Amino acid sequence: YAKLSKMSENGVLSRAKVLTIDTMNPTVKKVEYAVRGPIVLRAVELERELSEGMKKPFSEVIKANIGDAHAMGQQPITFFRQVLALCSYPELLNDSTFPEDAKSRARRILQSCGGNSMGSYTASQGIDSVRQDVARYIERRDGGVPCDPDDIYLTTGASDGIVTMLKLLVCGEGATRTGVMISIPQYPLYSAALAELGAVQINYYLNEEKCWSMDISELQRALDEARRHCNPRALCVINPGNPTGQVQSRQCIEDVIRFAANERLLLMADEVYQDNVYAEGCQFHSFKKVLFEMGPEYSDTVELVSFHSTSKCYMGECGFRGGYMEIINMDDEVKAQLTKLVSVRLCPPVPGQALMDLVVNPPQPGEPSHDNFIKERTATLSALAEKAKLTEQVLNTIQGISCNPVQGAMYSFPRITIPEKAIQEAMEPDMFYCMKMLEETGICLVPGSGFGQTDGTYHFRMTILPPTDKLTILLNKVKEFHQKFTQQYS
Amino acid sequence: YAKLSKMSENGVLSRAKVLTIDTMNPTVKKVEYAVRGPIVLRAVELERELSEGMKKPFSEVIKANIGDAHAMGQQPITFFRQVLALCSYPELLNDSTFPEDAKSRARRILQSCGGNSMGSYTASQGIDSVRQDVARYIERRDGGVPCDPDDIYLTTGASDGIVTMLKLLVCGEGATRTGVMISIPQYPLYSAALAELGAVQINYYLNEEKCWSMDISELQRALDEARRHCNPRALCVINPGNPTGQVQSRQCIEDVIRFAANERLLLMADEVYQDNVYAEGCQFHSFKKVLFEMGPEYSDTVELVSFHSTSKCYMGECGFRGGYMEIINMDDEVKAQLTKLVSVRLCPPVPGQALMDLVVNPPQPGEPSHDNFIKERTATLSALAEKAKLTEQVLNTIQGISCNPVQGAMYSFPRITIPEKAIQEAMEPDMFYCMKMLEETGICLVPGSGFGQTDGTYHFRMTILPPTDKLTILLNKVKEFHQKFTQQYS
Ligand SMILES: Cc1ncc(COP(=O)(O)O)c(C=O)c1O
Ligand SMILES: Cc1ncc(COP(=O)(O)O)c(C=O)c1O
Repeated sequence: YAKLSKMSENGVLSRAKVLTIDTMNPTVKKVEYAVRGPIVLRAVELERELSEGMKKPFSEVIKANIGDAHAMGQQPITFFRQVLALCSYPELLNDSTFPEDAKSRARRILQSCGGNSMGSYTASQGIDSVRQDVARYIERRDGGVPCDPDDIYLTTGASDGIVTMLKLLVCGEGATRTGVMISIPQYPLYSAALAELGAVQINYYLNEEKCWSMDISELQRALDEARRHCNPRALCVINPGNPTGQVQSRQCIEDVIRFAANERLLLMADEVYQDNVYAEGCQFHSFKKVLFEMGPEYSDTVELVSFHSTSKCYMGECGFRGGYMEIINMDDEVKAQLTKLVSVRLCPPVPGQALMDLVVNPPQPGEPSHDNFIKERTATLSALAEKAKLTEQVLNTIQGISCNPVQGAMYSFPRITIPEKAIQEAMEPDMFYCMKMLEETGICLVPGSGFGQTDGTYHFRMTILPPTDKLTILLNKVKEFHQKFTQQYS
Repeated sequence: YAKLSKMSENGVLSRAKVLTIDTMNPTVKKVEYAVRGPIVLRAVELERELSEGMKKPFSEVIKANIGDAHAMGQQPITFFRQVLALCSYPELLNDSTFPEDAKSRARRILQSCGGNSMGSYTASQGIDSVRQDVARYIERRDGGVPCDPDDIYLTTGASDGIVTMLKLLVCGEGATRTGVMISIPQYPLYSAALAELGAVQINYYLNEEKCWSMDISELQRALDEARRHCNPRALCVINPGNPTGQVQSRQCIEDVIRFAANERLLLMADEVYQDNVYAEGCQFHSFKKVLFEMGPEYSDTVELVSFHSTSKCYMGECGFRGGYMEIINMDDEVKAQLTKLVSVRLCPPVPGQALMDLVVNPPQPGEPSHDNFIKERTATLSALAEKAKLTEQVLNTIQGISCNPVQGAMYSFPRITIPEKAIQEAMEPDMFYCMKMLEETGICLVPGSGFGQTDGTYHFRMTILPPTDKLTILLNKVKEFHQKFTQQYS
């Protein structure tokens, strides 16, 4: 006991802490999450300094670091918010200014809630009627491929579903420890979750030269190497891609499914950007649809989990933490374990479940809110398409920056040339670059190292979300900064 | 490859599943969560059967298995729901039927949201202004003990905070593996989280004879035994208690804090029922307040985390998944790790954050909604107090059932005598008892085994939440059932 405590100067007994950096969970220490890393912390500080009247070389911090559409001024879909208000305060059902279709949606959601209140816990898997609506949405989306509501789990954002699935999967020790294949660049939730679970992260590289497409030979290389020291069991694909903005072709998806089948890998398809496709000739193909088109040899056997979210697409409702996952060909006993596991957290947030319901069951033709809904959705998606093009075009005019087309999602991940002198000077050249950009211009980006990149290459991720006029200013500032930076270190 | 697949009857190649009960994460398999176990699944089935017109010896399933107030008909606080509606659909700020204080709260919350929208991600720790309001609430509650908003983390319900803290703490292998002390009976989130993390669960027994109070000698016994095979590092206390409904005395809390300090244990105080105190002479004492009253020897050193939630008290807003935790005397580096860890899930649901804000900053005297707020809150809390008394009284009239007073929280955990013949017949006698009760009466309770109990004793947990008339029927049915059951097996 004496060893563990000491008298401080004022004579008060001071005890050694129970929990210190040396005695905490070591897997938590290994977790990294760049989207909210040091650059973002500094951006928040800068905003505070500006608001306190401190002088900076810029008048405003522009956050292009995170896929948060509303924060960048995108307006919510009126119909969705009307229904949420009605569900929150059902007195409004008597208010004649609310459209009838919003009211009938709200009534249907409330009827599915215990005591007709969003304040009740729901089934842990999510509200039955919402899961039914999700299943019908998936059937429509996939041209009639059947979907069983029992295979739908509502989640607290897609993040929750992804972490839960990985948790279910990871086991073994040493050479039998579960390995999970993830793309590089990746969305850092994956590396963070794998670190926390102590799983082996198996990197496969996307082909930057071919517009960030997936190469089966590269998947094979990564898998073969990994098999020497772990037990690879799952393959994660983000399509449309974050941070890379590509949309995978149908052929590529079919090849990936065949690869997963042959190599006995569970497929995790992160399809949260399924409505964010802009480039001509590109189209979203769900892994499920392609799987079923490949016939029963595949559709009866390949284990696939697909994730969706209310946070992206045209809704951008991140704060509500809505989402779902569909599990396909999952072993029944494992499914029972999954159901048990999610029950410990009681249930996903009900407003998020309600919102997910509206996303999969929006106003129909003939309903009073339909036209306005279509107008709002189209406006948002066309603005995103326009900004995707603008971003690619302007960035590619900058010498030392080259950028694949933003085919989908909401990011550009340009490659940047950093002068040798800057590379020498900095521990992490692209972090150095982004931090300098932030200090000098107020623009907040995420360095490529936060997502992973081929050694010796440098990138940053920037969202295309700021309003067009702001985005134009931002792109010009990036241009100016890059030129200055290049000069300074040449 | 051939070994792993086989031809099915119709000639289709069938592959062995990647993920099976034998190849999944073994720690997940160990998780149990009784509050939503087989009894509840059967109750849902029975409800469906009833609705399909099947004949049963009852006309309605009454769910007294879960602390879900709204599902049992409790009405939400009008002011809270008005503000949530305003935040969801800010157009309503122009609606003159909403009171001004609701509007000004909504404006303040929206101003703290990116783009003035609840659809934006917030800081991972939670919205700044909400954390400030929480800190002021805690200061008021604890008679001026200071609270730093930086020590507040908003969470996705209390469940999320509890799991996160445990995750931070658990490490080591074999004899150095982290052990965590939990009460028996306990709320099964704790055992579930510990199983999932592979931590050692250290049981200390509450004293049923002394109204489920904590005995320091029993804590010492449990700790000393555990020290032989693991590294005990934390002590969890639920006060007011779930499933046991006790309210710990100030003296008991002081003794527990002294014990934790002497034994170098981090304290986790689950105080989600802090407003649910009914019994005369009982009062809620926060661990933090008592800690600070014990002087700097304790208040400068003992690591304490306290959890609160929007789910309980007079609000009962479970579905919104709001909550917070306050961390006291946490090492700075550990705190930085905690902040990083929560950032991976991006942020807690914003409607839940908004609701938490309203709970800690309700209408003030003089504001238009104040009187109605007080009226609604008082009505709910008095009804609960009345039902607490009713439950205790009726249960104690039943021969073979004995029940401590429901001093607080929202549960009764009576001890039941199960005849020897039934014990012989059943694998789990109290599960057998509760399942029979459900089939014969439609009443859904949770067997004591789901929470843990002294060997050879049997209990069930029942909530006091049904409306008084229904609760009376329920209690009478329990009485009838117990008498019949006792006869049948005597
Ligand atoms: C590829 C991808 N997956 C999952 C998520 C998680 O989103 P959420 O948890 O908000 O649904 C994101 C968020 O940016 C993402 O980009
Ligand atoms: C003691 C205790 N702690 C924590 C919780 C979790 O509540 P929530 O996650 O809804 O805040 C509960 C729920 O019943 C509880 O009884």
